[in-house]
Amino acid sequence: MENFGGKKKECAYEKEENGVGNGGGIEMKKKWCFKANESISSASGITIRGTLGMLMESRNLNDKRETIPLGHGDPSAFPCFRTSLIAEDAIVDCLRSSKFNSYSPSVGIQSARRAVAEYLSRDLSYELSAEDVFLTVGCIQSIEIVLSVLARRGANILLPRPGFPIYESRATFSNLEIRHFDLLPEKGWEVDLDAVKALADENTVAMVVINPGNPCGNVLSYQHMKKVAETARKLGILIISDEVYGHLTFVNNRFIPMGSFGSIAPVLTLGSISKRWLVPGWRLGWITVNDPNGYLKEAKIVDSIIGYANISTDPATFIQAAVPKILEETTEDFFDNTISILRESAEICYDVINEIDCIYCPHKPDGSMFVMVKIDTSLLEDIIDDMDFCTKLAKEESVIVLPGICVGMRNWLRITFAIEPLRLQDGLRRMKDFCQRHSNKL
Amino acid sequence: MENFGGKKKECAYEKEENGVGNGGGIEMKKKWCFKANESISSASGITIRGTLGMLMESRNLNDKRETIPLGHGDPSAFPCFRTSLIAEDAIVDCLRSSKFNSYSPSVGIQSARRAVAEYLSRDLSYELSAEDVFLTVGCIQSIEIVLSVLARRGANILLPRPGFPIYESRATFSNLEIRHFDLLPEKGWEVDLDAVKALADENTVAMVVINPGNPCGNVLSYQHMKKVAETARKLGILIISDEVYGHLTFVNNRFIPMGSFGSIAPVLTLGSISKRWLVPGWRLGWITVNDPNGYLKEAKIVDSIIGYANISTDPATFIQAAVPKILEETTEDFFDNTISILRESAEICYDVINEIDCIYCPHKPDGSMFVMVKIDTSLLEDIIDDMDFCTKLAKEESVIVLPGICVGMRNWLRITFAIEPLRLQDGLRRMKDFCQRHSNKL
Ligand SMILES: Cc1ncc(COP(=O)(O)O)c(C=O)c1O
Ligand SMILES: Cc1ncc(COP(=O)(O)O)c(C=O)c1O
Repeated sequence: MENFGGKKKECAYEKEENGVGNGGGIEMKKKWCFKANESISSASGITIRGTLGMLMESRNLNDKRETIPLGHGDPSAFPCFRTSLIAEDAIVDCLRSSKFNSYSPSVGIQSARRAVAEYLSRDLSYELSAEDVFLTVGCIQSIEIVLSVLARRGANILLPRPGFPIYESRATFSNLEIRHFDLLPEKGWEVDLDAVKALADENTVAMVVINPGNPCGNVLSYQHMKKVAETARKLGILIISDEVYGHLTFVNNRFIPMGSFGSIAPVLTLGSISKRWLVPGWRLGWITVNDPNGYLKEAKIVDSIIGYANISTDPATFIQAAVPKILEETTEDFFDNTISILRESAEICYDVINEIDCIYCPHKPDGSMFVMVKIDTSLLEDIIDDMDFCTKLAKEESVIVLPGICVGMRNWLRITFAIEPLRLQDGLRRMKDFCQRHSNKL
Repeated sequence: MENFGGKKKECAYEKEENGVGNGGGIEMKKKWCFKANESISSASGITIRGTLGMLMESRNLNDKRETIPLGHGDPSAFPCFRTSLIAEDAIVDCLRSSKFNSYSPSVGIQSARRAVAEYLSRDLSYELSAEDVFLTVGCIQSIEIVLSVLARRGANILLPRPGFPIYESRATFSNLEIRHFDLLPEKGWEVDLDAVKALADENTVAMVVINPGNPCGNVLSYQHMKKVAETARKLGILIISDEVYGHLTFVNNRFIPMGSFGSIAPVLTLGSISKRWLVPGWRLGWITVNDPNGYLKEAKIVDSIIGYANISTDPATFIQAAVPKILEETTEDFFDNTISILRESAEICYDVINEIDCIYCPHKPDGSMFVMVKIDTSLLEDIIDDMDFCTKLAKEESVIVLPGICVGMRNWLRITFAIEPLRLQDGLRRMKDFCQRHSNKL
């Protein structure tokens, strides 16, 4: 094939490149008209993935011990967290039928929407219909769709701190102004409702609640959730309830969907099979409209979700087709097994953390896969902050933990306990050694 | 469960609702602060999916004949277009291994990126590396990512007319100004390069080329593609080359990737397994950077693609993991079979169209799955335009054809010939009857 690059052509661009044109240094640089959209670099600045990747790079390759990943919420690589065979079979059957190689409707195939509606209705006092459900390529896409839909000009959104940074990224990308309210560690990470009231104005469109909590591992009580809904109603805003960790609770307070309070304030519930079925790689999630009064329909939010779905990609059709079987036929013992491992891991995590002087855990986790703990840097000799802590921990102990700054809280850590209990123990022991070694109380 | 909706609360909102507050009619309406992002309704205005859905609704349910779908580019429902068993097996093996239930890296898993790089390099004079490839949830998401990345403030993009309307939708949603250049029917739907030159200015960032063509069914020649690249270079713009129909060509001129001209002007190539493997429901595509000179890297376009991937969803991990086997092991007879059916169908389509007085086909299709034909409404009695034609055709004959207006050309039709040849014949015969019945030359 001809070597085009070397060929000479008579055009303005070429002249500039060779310095024959008007020759100024600035023009010579400005030869191509494209450059990247500035809002993407600000939106994708600090991501969990990016930080964890950086920490993995910080490891000492001479350390022959196994790396202990306490950084990300994906236990699916561990044999004890293998998904149910029923779910796998459902996928294989749908694929082999060759009936689901085609495009799906942009809102999802009807049987799957209906199955999700039935699944979620089990925990509600009213029935969702298939039309209330929109299938997505995982909860990540649910967040993308919902924030895109709400990002009318001038709008702002209330996000929790600590939180899940994809909300910040997507809001920034959509020019949706972000206002943070705190979650209160001393109150089991409840929402600071006074802060919510103080932050909201007539341009506030929604508040985000993540329950069971990432990164805090808390599960909200019925009473508190009702107050959240009443506050939202007073403020005239909707609630985006991220329930991707739905049903992953292992202490008394069982999981209550925010949709239960949909008559008080409209709720968009975001979920997926990623966590409960331990298959984040399958990329199947949903948005549901929990709004018995129809306010979201009236405000054209529902039309807009459909409109956005029309110009977006969809989950694989054969995976959608497997949803009814996955949701209806997975047996309780599969869920029980996951919960009992998580419960054990959470205990281990809490107990070992309590043995470490410079780390404080304000709330024992009762759900999800994470716990937030505070570092007391004043007790450490040569650790300036959470990022420094995590970088040195990765280097010296091959243990990966997420710096709190990634979820909005400097000098905190987010620890994932959703890994095999033995490895968790090993990782926490290494962390304890690390803290003792760096202690200034020698 | 308590019925919250009925409970009374003391809040501004409630008072307004009951008309006890400041009571003006306007305030009473303005109780919730959310409303939908205006740009979504304009972006998702006319979609192919929406129009085809509407035409399906127009059918006469008393017509007992089978509906003939000549509207959309998805032949996978027909047994003669079933995908290769090798591809199916690859997916099942990856799923059953349980090694791919986890999240993937946001740019895609390395083995799949490498396999796509090798697959595409077969047709290039230089080697792509895995780092030049970004996996996507189908070409739809490739378009989303690329247009989002290029949509810096004030930028405009050159799109073909007729074209593929997701480009218009996504550009509109991203505030990327659209300027249309024509494809020239009398020149085999070549790009009107004079129009391209006239439209471009210093804010033009890219032009889109779809080859093999949707909706035109044309395949661009080496000489013309080289001119396109040279024009792009002169204008300082990049080329977005949508090659989702890559290798689906059935006349002499074989498929040439635009990346072959990457040394003349930088090319972002968009592709997927949807069409060649007849599995649009599997949602696996890519963006590749065909830019041996590294201009896109220099302009931070590559970083921005990675940044956007970091805040976006991904294809299912086990489907990604199957990509090496799918690309490397699918046998030639599978492709040959598809091509020979498409060739036969294209012939049938062209021949029958030529027998219909009021419809004119300027260019026999030599690739993709579509042909564009012009309606001469002056020869028809009671058909005012393409939308009217398609609506009545659906109603009277249960044949679904896409009105040209959906792809930017009023009084044209886009006909899909990628269906079983016998049904195609049936559908075209009904269309011929329809035209004769509505002819004004009685
Ligand atoms: C709070 C929260 N929301 C959403 C997601 C994304 O979930 P999915 O895998 O369904 O995209 C995660 C994943 O970790 C999460 O923690
Ligand atoms: C020109 C063009 N680009 C992109 C796409 C989307 O392809 P995918 O199924 O890979 O998302 C299509 C689908 O019809 C198309 O025709």
